[in-house]
Amino acid sequence: MPFRNLLKYPGEASDNSSWEAKASAKRAATLAKIPAGWRLDEQDLDRAANERDLTRSFINQHLLPEEIAIVEQGSVSLVEGIREGRLSAVQVTRAFCKTAAVAHQINNCLHEIFFDQALQRAQELDNHLASHGTVLGPLHGLPISLKDQFHVKGNATSMGYIGWIDTYEGNPDPNLVFNVNSQVVTELLALGAVLYCKTSLPQTLMLGETVNNIIGRTLNPVNQNLSCGGSSGGEGALSALHGSSVGLGTDIGGSVRIPAAFCGIFSLKPTHNRLSYRDVANAIPGQTTYASSVGVLGNTIEAIHLVLSSLISTKPWLRDPNVAPLPWRQGIVDETLSRAGKTSRSASAGEKRPLKLGILWTDGVVTPHPPVARGLHLVVEAVERAGHKVVTWTPPSQTTAKRVHISFLTADGGHDIHRQLDLSGEPLIPQLRDPFCLRDPMSLLEYQALTIEGRDYEAAYSDYWNETSNAEDAYTEAINLLDYSTVVIPVTKADKNQDLADENYVPLDELDVKNWRAYDPEIYDGAPVGVQIVARKYEEEKAWAIGKIVYDCLRELEV
Amino acid sequence: MPFRNLLKYPGEASDNSSWEAKASAKRAATLAKIPAGWRLDEQDLDRAANERDLTRSFINQHLLPEEIAIVEQGSVSLVEGIREGRLSAVQVTRAFCKTAAVAHQINNCLHEIFFDQALQRAQELDNHLASHGTVLGPLHGLPISLKDQFHVKGNATSMGYIGWIDTYEGNPDPNLVFNVNSQVVTELLALGAVLYCKTSLPQTLMLGETVNNIIGRTLNPVNQNLSCGGSSGGEGALSALHGSSVGLGTDIGGSVRIPAAFCGIFSLKPTHNRLSYRDVANAIPGQTTYASSVGVLGNTIEAIHLVLSSLISTKPWLRDPNVAPLPWRQGIVDETLSRAGKTSRSASAGEKRPLKLGILWTDGVVTPHPPVARGLHLVVEAVERAGHKVVTWTPPSQTTAKRVHISFLTADGGHDIHRQLDLSGEPLIPQLRDPFCLRDPMSLLEYQALTIEGRDYEAAYSDYWNETSNAEDAYTEAINLLDYSTVVIPVTKADKNQDLADENYVPLDELDVKNWRAYDPEIYDGAPVGVQIVARKYEEEKAWAIGKIVYDCLRELEV
Repeated sequence: MPFRNLLKYPGEASDNSSWEAKASAKRAATLAKIPAGWRLDEQDLDRAANERDLTRSFINQHLLPEEIAIVEQGSVSLVEGIREGRLSAVQVTRAFCKTAAVAHQINNCLHEIFFDQALQRAQELDNHLASHGTVLGPLHGLPISLKDQFHVKGNATSMGYIGWIDTYEGNPDPNLVFNVNSQVVTELLALGAVLYCKTSLPQTLMLGETVNNIIGRTLNPVNQNLSCGGSSGGEGALSALHGSSVGLGTDIGGSVRIPAAFCGIFSLKPTHNRLSYRDVANAIPGQTTYASSVGVLGNTIEAIHLVLSSLISTKPWLRDPNVAPLPWRQGIVDETLSRAGKTSRSASAGEKRPLKLGILWTDGVVTPHPPVARGLHLVVEAVERAGHKVVTWTPPSQTTAKRVHISFLTADGGHDIHRQLDLSGEPLIPQLRDPFCLRDPMSLLEYQALTIEGRDYEAAYSDYWNETSNAEDAYTEAINLLDYSTVVIPVTKADKNQDLADENYVPLDELDVKNWRAYDPEIYDGAPVGVQIVARKYEEEKAWAIGKIVYDCLRELEV
Repeated sequence: MPFRNLLKYPGEASDNSSWEAKASAKRAATLAKIPAGWRLDEQDLDRAANERDLTRSFINQHLLPEEIAIVEQGSVSLVEGIREGRLSAVQVTRAFCKTAAVAHQINNCLHEIFFDQALQRAQELDNHLASHGTVLGPLHGLPISLKDQFHVKGNATSMGYIGWIDTYEGNPDPNLVFNVNSQVVTELLALGAVLYCKTSLPQTLMLGETVNNIIGRTLNPVNQNLSCGGSSGGEGALSALHGSSVGLGTDIGGSVRIPAAFCGIFSLKPTHNRLSYRDVANAIPGQTTYASSVGVLGNTIEAIHLVLSSLISTKPWLRDPNVAPLPWRQGIVDETLSRAGKTSRSASAGEKRPLKLGILWTDGVVTPHPPVARGLHLVVEAVERAGHKVVTWTPPSQTTAKRVHISFLTADGGHDIHRQLDLSGEPLIPQLRDPFCLRDPMSLLEYQALTIEGRDYEAAYSDYWNETSNAEDAYTEAINLLDYSTVVIPVTKADKNQDLADENYVPLDELDVKNWRAYDPEIYDGAPVGVQIVARKYEEEKAWAIGKIVYDCLRELEV
């Protein structure tokens, strides 16, 4: 079976002003930015379209051994290598640009390509290190990919809207177009990062898949039967293909966590005001009761720590009044790691005190598929074997959280989304036609009543947490309502021989049956399984450290 | 001229079920809780009604010298005296209960009286100290007054609504009525505080005066020609009369700062999520875009530090997920004080580095009255004489901030307020009939567009701050939109001989003329003048320390 994306090469459009023509021109312009030497031929593309798993050995066919050696390193190893002179920023940047170029051709995961800008920046960084003998910052020379919501001067941000192409969020003002850096982009540059591409996302951002009318669909590169997840889907796919070692996404309903879990990489979604969202394009920006978070995705857990702690070290709250003035508290990381008998470089070995983890076997809305259930059992086995405690987590009904959360996302009756669609005349993608059809906005009284309902749910959940104490694991939307800090780690891969449908399955309702039937051991075989690890609000340090502990426990289980 | 409150003693109502009768019964029940020995006679009440200034020598006529010696001490001295055994908690509590009882009779500033509960609690604290040799916490034995939004088990919370009398926020559920502590109340009790009364506020909270249909009006005890301010007006009045050394209020548009400035005391309004608002009664609780803050009012600046730092030491964020997990950063206090060559007990003398203060001479909406303008000049003179710098502060137009802020408070078309009024049939007080008449709520699209406008204003203001750097001083509403941390300190008193109308006054517009004409040197003579000192979000420690420095500079000017 061929795993065809909606589009490989843009065809001709009869009418240049149609939305189809604009989308086609944009696709072509992006592909045209790939240097001739990095282009694949039709035969390679066909082979990719018929391959289930595009990662590792498949994509590596198109790379040189020295390029593979670079892109398969994690972010921490890369910045060390550059700092210590074993690698140059140009060398590293070129390897990631080439890998991203190949990844885009076989996986359709990029919206913007700016390799020239990246290589020039890398050269400047190499010159800086040569002349000063010191790095510019902790991210010196590290290529970082960005979901196509972040503005980078000199480049476009379409956010998947045809009407935004070559504008600033639909605004043609030349003072703005291609002329704004999101605050977090300025911070990355000040820290020494190299920016080289922006990644794909779904139209509107409000989907757990990645498909829009400009680039079509991004599939899961680990198993092309499946979606790469969304909305930070391009980030997940590019990272799994090692076209990026770390990047930024955003999350208002699982958008940083779903792609990480689907693609088998790591991510951290902070509480919404830990990183700056200033001058980042967004959907429905006036809905701030449940705000989107900027989060980090990467193919090593250490990459998450590096980027998150570096960004916070710039004191983003001094420039964005919406950011909480919480420094990176390495002490919490160290104290948490020491409880598992682990130490970071800056901490001495502490007394081993077992963690207590809550596990959510089901949220009562949809029953986890067999590979996910097995993943949860693996986590429990791994952490118990290491001496930690696991308790069953039975929080206040997540049905309430989901209902309240989705109500806020749809409260404006689709007006913001349709305003952007109307700029070009492009239609809503079919998956979104029901939830985001244009209709009357919710009444303000209902909106404010829902605010109180959400507040009370949050308080009840906090009380439950205090009664039970320590940590938990839940599906994605409830966690946004609660604004908790969350890490995703890969656990295992679906295995058609192990992950058979449970014969004791009891349907919860029609939705659950529909979800359950979507599982097919043959189709899912090889797909990554990830888990979320949830800590309280603003406990990013603790969430990260527990993620590292659990991941290490899982590795020991494999041995 | 007699300074009569709307009501001294409740009369008879012909119909027991009318809102007037319920209000009258409530007033009588509150007055009946004052022990017979503390009641004033008609002659005393008449004398009070004809006296301009009820503070100090006037109220002291009704107190014993040993009681005066207690209530004129600040909170810090009181807790030290109790801890070191020079005072008992019962002795201190009785002195404040009696002073509050007298204050209420002459100034009408209380909603709830629970002196018996307070004296019993004080006795338990004395017993604890006697048997354990240690205090329960840093507030051991300190009487703390509360604005009538905070729930205290065993007592009512009317929040000025007749329909809430003997209910839980209008709900008659016996599991709730008289059975809830606000989280911050639980924290105060855990810290050793004694709670003894709740103070008056305006109907709806949305007024800078203090008047409601239950107790009538609370005047300014320093100058009964004027209002005590609002909405935490009872707190301001009680504190000025030394019926409280410290208490809690709330602020969504100046409600902690206005009464402090009007009554000549101190206050601090934190960023909204620095203290817990959990289980605190509120108006329009579903409007959370611009959220109300719990703040502290007291008649010494040290009292503010004591209560704020003690509350934060309990880690309120572990129980209220809406509180930011920021510990009290005494280091910021010490570092700021050391810049003025001052030291707190825990800090060594640092290098003197002058502060840079921005001063807002006018917000361009209403011109400050002559006593206020003179107060600002006094501040500048005082801090410049101490070697600090002052620059003129010209932030983005506050007109925008005021328009956006008031739009959020009125967005629900008065529905929440009218729902509470309808419980009893009481009418809206005349001052509020225009802004809070019942009408259609704002559309959600407009609400969300205003959210973006407010966000952009906040960003622009932050940029202005970064360009200018350090501190500033502004009127109250813009500060709520910005959610900045703010201290109010008393500066001087209006003086009919000094504070003549400025002959060079140029009217800004009709509103400004109306405000300007309201100033009459004879009427205002003796009224306190306070200033706000504003720091960034979450900079309560810095705001407090700068407040202390400026206040000390002013005292030195007097010498």
